[in-house]
Amino acid sequence: MGYNLAFIGFGVVGQGLAQLLDEKQDCLRESFGLEYKVTAISDPVKGSVYQEGGLDLKRILALVDKEGNINGYGEGVKGWDSLKTIQDSNADVIIEVSPTNIENGEPGISHIRTALGKMKHVITTNKGPVALFYRELSELAKKNGVVLKFEGTVLSGTPAINLSLDALAGADVCEIKGIMNGTTNYMLTKMAEGQSYDDVLKEAQRLGYAETKPDADVKGWDAQAKIVILANVVMGGMLAPKDVPTEGITDITLDDIEKARKDGKRYKLIGHAWKEGGKVMARVSPQLVGTDDFLYHVNGVINALTFDTDVLGKVTVVGAGAGKKETGFSLLVDLINMHNVRAK
Amino acid sequence: MGYNLAFIGFGVVGQGLAQLLDEKQDCLRESFGLEYKVTAISDPVKGSVYQEGGLDLKRILALVDKEGNINGYGEGVKGWDSLKTIQDSNADVIIEVSPTNIENGEPGISHIRTALGKMKHVITTNKGPVALFYRELSELAKKNGVVLKFEGTVLSGTPAINLSLDALAGADVCEIKGIMNGTTNYMLTKMAEGQSYDDVLKEAQRLGYAETKPDADVKGWDAQAKIVILANVVMGGMLAPKDVPTEGITDITLDDIEKARKDGKRYKLIGHAWKEGGKVMARVSPQLVGTDDFLYHVNGVINALTFDTDVLGKVTVVGAGAGKKETGFSLLVDLINMHNVRAK
Repeated sequence: MGYNLAFIGFGVVGQGLAQLLDEKQDCLRESFGLEYKVTAISDPVKGSVYQEGGLDLKRILALVDKEGNINGYGEGVKGWDSLKTIQDSNADVIIEVSPTNIENGEPGISHIRTALGKMKHVITTNKGPVALFYRELSELAKKNGVVLKFEGTVLSGTPAINLSLDALAGADVCEIKGIMNGTTNYMLTKMAEGQSYDDVLKEAQRLGYAETKPDADVKGWDAQAKIVILANVVMGGMLAPKDVPTEGITDITLDDIEKARKDGKRYKLIGHAWKEGGKVMARVSPQLVGTDDFLYHVNGVINALTFDTDVLGKVTVVGAGAGKKETGFSLLVDLINMHNVRAK
Repeated sequence: MGYNLAFIGFGVVGQGLAQLLDEKQDCLRESFGLEYKVTAISDPVKGSVYQEGGLDLKRILALVDKEGNINGYGEGVKGWDSLKTIQDSNADVIIEVSPTNIENGEPGISHIRTALGKMKHVITTNKGPVALFYRELSELAKKNGVVLKFEGTVLSGTPAINLSLDALAGADVCEIKGIMNGTTNYMLTKMAEGQSYDDVLKEAQRLGYAETKPDADVKGWDAQAKIVILANVVMGGMLAPKDVPTEGITDITLDDIEKARKDGKRYKLIGHAWKEGGKVMARVSPQLVGTDDFLYHVNGVINALTFDTDVLGKVTVVGAGAGKKETGFSLLVDLINMHNVRAK
């Protein structure tokens, strides 16, 4: 009984989930009757192993921690690539956490198509496939009677997708606006304290908030993918990333920021989706916000999203937008909710 | 097919739900496959009518609007009291929205016990029964295979209970803190602008935020009931309202507020639950918060709740804490979620 999970990708986020699955196993069984085994991991760098009866997560995590890969794991079948793992393992839930690619969604999109095609549930944090192919994938999942969940694509584990689909079910969301990239919000916060763009970028990289190649964050592409996902999933939009005018923070100078400060304002990188003439539109751009704007007070790596609804007016959620455990948790909460809905 | 609903109580909140059920009928069928009829309404003031095939909500709402009661509704059986309606109507979902009583929970608690005992689902906004008897009621619901939902008892329709139980499922909530009474937050906001307690109370009453007898709000009892519900439901506490030291805003003078303003601070009525030595504790009290505290910037009738969790750190939700449509919506979202879980 219970679910067999396969991890496609075993980087930071996958390891974050594995750790939570190990730590919370007893508590999840007691609280939700949720039982699971991880039977496969496939990662081109960390290695691949498939063990029908379930892997020993503690040993796996210790191995990857010590050796940087899981090749030394004593048992199981080694060397299966991602597609073979999806197709031939006994997993019924595919945890898709391969690297994000917002240009064509690969390799994630092939993983997800294959998994849904094999009637396997998919839980992912991978923004690319969801931003590019949400309608196709959700229809495929529906047709095949399986679940596709992706809370972690927006605001990591802080509820955003599940909040709007479940906790706001029945409300009509007419506008979504907020800070949806923690790295740039951290950088803008530090620049407002007087540090230069180059210095804060280096610091963000040192702290692991920014990648060595920081384009996806600082050019706004990450926020673009997220607002596309929200617009399409929550507001019924039909947007592709290319439809969304996007400007990052690379042109904001310390002078700009100092001028804003004197006016009592701060720059924030804002993702925004709204309805216009029956169509859903979106854009990403740096905007000046004053002290009376809630977002003025959201600083550091924290994210904030405001949903404007027909019945409730504005509902705002604020929380961590990144992190190993936080993003790992988004996968766990999706697994629990999938189980809760299916178990009843 | 579909659900038969009975309204026990038909005041502002019940009417708010009835309006949403009428307006959103087609959209709810399409989006969620959710179908329903309202077959009974029982209210000691507004009147009672039971019609097996379903009441005409538009006519009911027009009647209550025009005449202040539904006695002139032409068809159906008249005069059933609440318990007879619960027991003998064909309703399988009881919408319990009778007046709140936080001292002994009556008459709501009798309604809910009777409904759950008759294997009927219960959706309520009634704080008293949930604050006083949550464990008993949730066990009874579980034993009888029915659902008890109560999103609207805290922060009206702004997700709080469903957020923490579903969207944060699997996270361990170790602390909850926030502004959970809109009336007093409105009053403190206006007092910070220089108006006296008596003047703002009158204005709050005129605007319908405060009752003629405002004790439940200004003495902190409403916030007390809410923090008890959150502590017990979300954190596994065993608190009764009497266990929670509670101080309202009645002793705060304009002088106090002016002194706070000079220090760059504001008074907020804060509900707070935390764990201490393995036990869940709670209190309600006015507290001074500075500009660096998020809650400083939450003003007017708006509420805000922060959940501190093991995996996500702090998650905050901000939104309306009252209102006819807003609270009516809390009942609707509970109905949709109940349906979604049972339909799959």
